[in-house]
Amino acid sequence: MGKTATLLISCPDTKGIVAEITGFIAGNGGNIIHADQHIDFQKKTFFMRIEWELQGFKIPDSEIGRAFSPIAEKFKMDWELHFSDEVKRVAIFVSKHDHCLYELLYRFKAGDFPGGELALVISNHLDHKGLVESFGIPFYHFPITKETKREVEEKEVELLQREEVDLIVLARYMQILSDWFVNQYRNRIINIHHSFLPAFVGAKPYHRAYERGVKIIGATSHYVTEELDQGPIIEQDVVRVSHRDSVEDMIKKGRDLEKLVLARAVKWHLENKILVYDNKTVIFD
Amino acid sequence: MGKTATLLISCPDTKGIVAEITGFIAGNGGNIIHADQHIDFQKKTFFMRIEWELQGFKIPDSEIGRAFSPIAEKFKMDWELHFSDEVKRVAIFVSKHDHCLYELLYRFKAGDFPGGELALVISNHLDHKGLVESFGIPFYHFPITKETKREVEEKEVELLQREEVDLIVLARYMQILSDWFVNQYRNRIINIHHSFLPAFVGAKPYHRAYERGVKIIGATSHYVTEELDQGPIIEQDVVRVSHRDSVEDMIKKGRDLEKLVLARAVKWHLENKILVYDNKTVIFD
Amino acid sequence: MGKTATLLISCPDTKGIVAEITGFIAGNGGNIIHADQHIDFQKKTFFMRIEWELQGFKIPDSEIGRAFSPIAEKFKMDWELHFSDEVKRVAIFVSKHDHCLYELLYRFKAGDFPGGELALVISNHLDHKGLVESFGIPFYHFPITKETKREVEEKEVELLQREEVDLIVLARYMQILSDWFVNQYRNRIINIHHSFLPAFVGAKPYHRAYERGVKIIGATSHYVTEELDQGPIIEQDVVRVSHRDSVEDMIKKGRDLEKLVLARAVKWHLENKILVYDNKTVIFD
Amino acid sequence: MGKTATLLISCPDTKGIVAEITGFIAGNGGNIIHADQHIDFQKKTFFMRIEWELQGFKIPDSEIGRAFSPIAEKFKMDWELHFSDEVKRVAIFVSKHDHCLYELLYRFKAGDFPGGELALVISNHLDHKGLVESFGIPFYHFPITKETKREVEEKEVELLQREEVDLIVLARYMQILSDWFVNQYRNRIINIHHSFLPAFVGAKPYHRAYERGVKIIGATSHYVTEELDQGPIIEQDVVRVSHRDSVEDMIKKGRDLEKLVLARAVKWHLENKILVYDNKTVIFD
Repeated sequence: MGKTATLLISCPDTKGIVAEITGFIAGNGGNIIHADQHIDFQKKTFFMRIEWELQGFKIPDSEIGRAFSPIAEKFKMDWELHFSDEVKRVAIFVSKHDHCLYELLYRFKAGDFPGGELALVISNHLDHKGLVESFGIPFYHFPITKETKREVEEKEVELLQREEVDLIVLARYMQILSDWFVNQYRNRIINIHHSFLPAFVGAKPYHRAYERGVKIIGATSHYVTEELDQGPIIEQDVVRVSHRDSVEDMIKKGRDLEKLVLARAVKWHLENKILVYDNKTVIFD
Repeated sequence: MGKTATLLISCPDTKGIVAEITGFIAGNGGNIIHADQHIDFQKKTFFMRIEWELQGFKIPDSEIGRAFSPIAEKFKMDWELHFSDEVKRVAIFVSKHDHCLYELLYRFKAGDFPGGELALVISNHLDHKGLVESFGIPFYHFPITKETKREVEEKEVELLQREEVDLIVLARYMQILSDWFVNQYRNRIINIHHSFLPAFVGAKPYHRAYERGVKIIGATSHYVTEELDQGPIIEQDVVRVSHRDSVEDMIKKGRDLEKLVLARAVKWHLENKILVYDNKTVIFD
Repeated sequence: MGKTATLLISCPDTKGIVAEITGFIAGNGGNIIHADQHIDFQKKTFFMRIEWELQGFKIPDSEIGRAFSPIAEKFKMDWELHFSDEVKRVAIFVSKHDHCLYELLYRFKAGDFPGGELALVISNHLDHKGLVESFGIPFYHFPITKETKREVEEKEVELLQREEVDLIVLARYMQILSDWFVNQYRNRIINIHHSFLPAFVGAKPYHRAYERGVKIIGATSHYVTEELDQGPIIEQDVVRVSHRDSVEDMIKKGRDLEKLVLARAVKWHLENKILVYDNKTVIFD
Repeated sequence: MGKTATLLISCPDTKGIVAEITGFIAGNGGNIIHADQHIDFQKKTFFMRIEWELQGFKIPDSEIGRAFSPIAEKFKMDWELHFSDEVKRVAIFVSKHDHCLYELLYRFKAGDFPGGELALVISNHLDHKGLVESFGIPFYHFPITKETKREVEEKEVELLQREEVDLIVLARYMQILSDWFVNQYRNRIINIHHSFLPAFVGAKPYHRAYERGVKIIGATSHYVTEELDQGPIIEQDVVRVSHRDSVEDMIKKGRDLEKLVLARAVKWHLENKILVYDNKTVIFD
């Protein structure tokens, strides 16, 4: 398949949106290869993801946005335009736990994330320097304390900007980002929380799951917002536990969930399949 | 929400299909509330399910099909047009096992299948006459032997036609329908098979699952074709088993799967969400 | 298989417990057909479920408890002794939602609960009188208001005692039982909560799940304690949802979970497979 | 917890086995910390896994087997005795696909397999030499053709014996081992098959799953026997697919299953939790 363009759209629901969008694409010679649409009837909001082949499309890539603008304005759309040859630059933040880091390193290397390239890894510890560099990825050590937090975050943001990072993945990063940091990467920071949100927000979820005697544990990937573990949920998954599982067993079982649930979220983000609205996500498949 | 129309379409993939269809609907004042589209790139086949509100639509319901025909012909479409106030008449066939029958009787009564009404139940045994009639549903007893098979099937088809039955659900019906019968209700007979197809085609799947020592068992709902358990799969689900599960335990666990997997298939069929092609199904959600 | 006896035991962990118990059984000619044991190393607590055939057992049934007492005292055991021909009498409490009631009525009738018999159904509404009585089960109507609560509960308990009810199943019963009531049936009242506890304790869990944008919803069966939705969890299960699912869709998907998760809990309770300790459950399989 | 011993036992079912075994352990001062027992009533076979602390046990480790022999003979037991400080030496065989190899390398390094150590990796290709050696694991290249098969296998077995390998893991190894090879490592070769056995035995299971239009795909880990994909199943798991999933999508989704399903099998084998009988497995938990 050749190069494609993708529009991600949300706007107040009204008549004729689909026809107008598809008319714009087809009228200019584009072949729609994927269209998915959704209406939230409660919020009266319209969502669409539409992808078309650019071969034979009459409008040059650099002009498509401008050409689409009148339609976007007419329907008061929030919209994004992406091209299939875009490559988002990704930074991973990690602390001591390495299972998610390892999974992501492997997947980038294996070609599982065609829409992304791993630019760098940042850690507040030195433990994984060797691992990261063995994959040929630059590793940056930013130790952090309460006192140095703002200063360190400013250095991190400076680095992220210099490296033109588009997406930050918190792969079990045990520091809470400041509002200042989060605001600069709204809907572009993905975290993995080791519980089935909204159960067990915050610290030590497996210990609390054990104490409560649940029969299923879970993991949740979500975009980071100012409120801890309250951001838009991207993906969740679960696994059965029983009275035989100690906290340590739960932690081990949970790891297998965490790395897969995080990897799916990263994949969908890089494929431009996620729309955020109202602190929730629409995941186009 | 008011009355809606739904088009189910499959055709060779080419440029401009989506735009033409949505243009037809919007150009006549229809408000698209659901559009889902899929392309099988291997088979170069295009699929679409599109639903729109009829309020304000300029073409009267009875003329929509004719008005759409030129587009259908242009793209060589297989297509169906449905209205949201259609009610499909359903017949359940059952033998001795009653868990699927009971589930369906409950769901029809509970209003879970708004697009269908239960017209009648046919059985080769008398066991469930009382149950069926307690739900106010006519029960027909058609005992069947090898010798009488064709004759009985003719009577059944006569009844089904007289009662204008659109969909036949085999709720653990232990007779194999003849090709003659199947051909009259192509893609309109849903069966539940008590295994994870294509594993354990045919008789006694739980016994064979037990013998093989599988760790997961399943159930499969599918449209009936001439070849036993080879029809297009609609839905499947599974449940874990262990060495502790005897054949009887598997049968019990399987029952809970069977009734849910069958009910989902019936629901989707009645909601016109299933497209059959190439002995497979596209399930629009 | 002939009649069996089952011991359910919990006690402080120490050396020699298993040997002493199995020695008691085998030394008296009992054939152990199932033994399952568990140690909570954190709490240093020992748990066991052991079942043996009574044919050839030298101690008469009525004497087994007394004969076992010295061992129980030696190890400071909490213990229960059950026989396979025991039949627990069950009462179902229900309000307006009928899916769990239906499921349980069907299962009792289908012989899925060999260790129990359905004694009666109590409801604060009259809606399901006909359904219950069509199964030949006595239906009692106890309307309830804030003012009459204690008085009504007293009448209910009187009825339950007269009918020698052992287990109460709240099949979507929308009244909160008083502490007074709960205390008389400790670990003998099973509730189904329509969320994945501890997420969404209390009212309208599906609405809150929808608002939060979760990707998986669940159901939880648990023993009722004084604290709302805080009792020992018996079983949980989950199902995927997406942005396409409205609250109503979640409610429908949830129903299928609720009825199965509740039925499993009732089954295990009736099979004497549940041990409660520390506000958690050990489920022997 | 200190050092423990574990007995794995299967024998014809008869009275008094549990009591005799637990009496042997407790009578010699052993503290039983885990006992799990199962009876296959169809085959009249008894199974047990029992683990006890060796601290204070009167019989020295090296004498336990001899001391237990009379009991084993009396009940005609197949039995194994393991100690918790045993370390099984593991060899991984791999071809081109590296996702299972990666997962296992990571888990050995992360300490997920305390009962095993990775001795070496054998491949018929050179692709993963660098990866394996970066983990400090010896890599052996054994290219193989139809003509050289027996000769190469002999060299492999020679290496395995020299390196005292106990367990062979086929991590998507695309060569079929000869009966001669398999016979030397009965119940000690674990394979991952990329389908839900017994569906899609043999080559290209994802392609065939796609063709058949299944709604769920799976992976199966099993011990290798002479018959292809017919050995005792250890673990299986599944994931949902839809019409939207191409063969390539299925392959990607399947990879995540394969590596986890294989890792679980290796873990349980190394923890001596698997008993094989009658071409099936008992998995003690």
